Amino acid sequence: MSLNSFDQWKTEVLTQVHQGLDQWLPKADQVPATLHRAMHYAVKSPGKRIRSLIACAAGDLFGASIEGTVHSAVAIELMHTYSLVHDDLPCMDNDELRRGKPTVHVAFDEATAMLVGDALQPLAFSVLVNQQTNLDHELRLKQVHVLSESAGSLGMVGGQAIDLSQVGMSMNRRELELMHSKKTGALFFASAELGALCGTTYSESFQEPLRAYARQIGFGFQVVDDILDACSPTEVLGKSAGKDQRDNKPTYVTLFGLDRAKEMASEIAKNTKSTLGLLPREGGYLSDIAELVFDRVY
Amino acid sequence: MSLNSFDQWKTEVLTQVHQGLDQWLPKADQVPATLHRAMHYAVKSPGKRIRSLIACAAGDLFGASIEGTVHSAVAIELMHTYSLVHDDLPCMDNDELRRGKPTVHVAFDEATAMLVGDALQPLAFSVLVNQQTNLDHELRLKQVHVLSESAGSLGMVGGQAIDLSQVGMSMNRRELELMHSKKTGALFFASAELGALCGTTYSESFQEPLRAYARQIGFGFQVVDDILDACSPTEVLGKSAGKDQRDNKPTYVTLFGLDRAKEMASEIAKNTKSTLGLLPREGGYLSDIAELVFDRVY
Repeated sequence: MSLNSFDQWKTEVLTQVHQGLDQWLPKADQVPATLHRAMHYAVKSPGKRIRSLIACAAGDLFGASIEGTVHSAVAIELMHTYSLVHDDLPCMDNDELRRGKPTVHVAFDEATAMLVGDALQPLAFSVLVNQQTNLDHELRLKQVHVLSESAGSLGMVGGQAIDLSQVGMSMNRRELELMHSKKTGALFFASAELGALCGTTYSESFQEPLRAYARQIGFGFQVVDDILDACSPTEVLGKSAGKDQRDNKPTYVTLFGLDRAKEMASEIAKNTKSTLGLLPREGGYLSDIAELVFDRVY
Repeated sequence: MSLNSFDQWKTEVLTQVHQGLDQWLPKADQVPATLHRAMHYAVKSPGKRIRSLIACAAGDLFGASIEGTVHSAVAIELMHTYSLVHDDLPCMDNDELRRGKPTVHVAFDEATAMLVGDALQPLAFSVLVNQQTNLDHELRLKQVHVLSESAGSLGMVGGQAIDLSQVGMSMNRRELELMHSKKTGALFFASAELGALCGTTYSESFQEPLRAYARQIGFGFQVVDDILDACSPTEVLGKSAGKDQRDNKPTYVTLFGLDRAKEMASEIAKNTKSTLGLLPREGGYLSDIAELVFDRVY
């Protein structure tokens, strides 16, 4: 698959996802208008949309069009955005900059930021049940199941709880990866599974390779994030640089040092390549997405 | 229907709801254990379970057993509990006492309270899709739709946003009731609709009376709450008394005075009675629940 065709596909996916977000969000001037303006502000802040790309790439792998997968991508973006807004709050990571812009509680206020997250989460489920596709009832229910499990206390929120409990503590690699498999990996897997369920050729036998891919991409994303956090200036990151170290959080870099973290990134990239071999068309666009994750500079 | 049979039925509902909550919550010692302990603490705090009663009463009205409706009640309780935990946080209502016990952020910490809410919400959806009943796929999807709409920015969270924006401001009765129809009424309606959908004899023609009942019970609940907040000592309420007035929040009592608020409660009770006449068996247990709401002392 040439880089050129991936770039075209990626542009098309992002266009449709942004249209989809606009379609599903209540209008920004609808009552209560401050809440809706803040929801738009949070959701439309320019992100990498990795989860949307994973969803649509998994859909493509099993025969679904972008049109058939975009609602799943939108649901995932809404869920992911809620988690960012809540994570940035003062009682959590207390971050004032996200994607190069003031975080929601800075641009609005804390209560509004809390409510933005609280409202984006049910909207994600609403999109899955009400999507205008021919996905049958059983598959929609399966999607709600996957998203709810991945978002809950045994998934993303559980990872966040482990993260908070580990401030100032040491972790071995296994513990760190357990945390990231929940905190980031769970929603990456949900992205892949939601997208795959949109395709007619998806079967359970592909669930394990998809799960492994999501986990590895999650680790890769995190180790690269930790390396960048340690090495890049704030203006390149679009968020506060060096913050993990200041917050005394265990990261790949603080636990193992920069050189070993870079070696780990290479190992994870290699494992991801093996996993892709277990999927149809060697993972199709999922392979290009892996390159994006491991080669990104911010 | 004699009060005695309602009391027996109510006891059976509450027993099954509490068993259901235990069944669906992850074990309190499961990793991350602090989060799970806090989820148990929040959910099992002794509440009136009005929403569970509404769900099971609506189920009963259309031919569903308690066993067939209890999962819907559990989902609603999880959603309601998340909203209480978040509403009590310092950036929202900043309340330290709930149901006679320290609120979650006091008993644990703010970050944990935030995550408890964030995890209870997807669990509610998980219960609806995974319930062990013979509810068909289409009806489960309809339940997810109803719950997600009622919880979102046009429902409960929207009502909360309006509430926050009105601190120190005056509202007329229409505006106050719009706020409460979202803040409380939306989840009351979801309770009734989720329960009704469990019954085989429910049809769309009953949706309007159910919605009117939920709205009126919501107003009734609120006006009685406002009267009690103004008149009762903290030890009777189980939450901080007189707080609405100190917080400069518009309530039925602060806006219209105690006497007019009491008159309004009577008017709403009368309207509720008319609405019940539009339902089978004059509302069955829904009628007893209305009495509970209008006659309660805390």
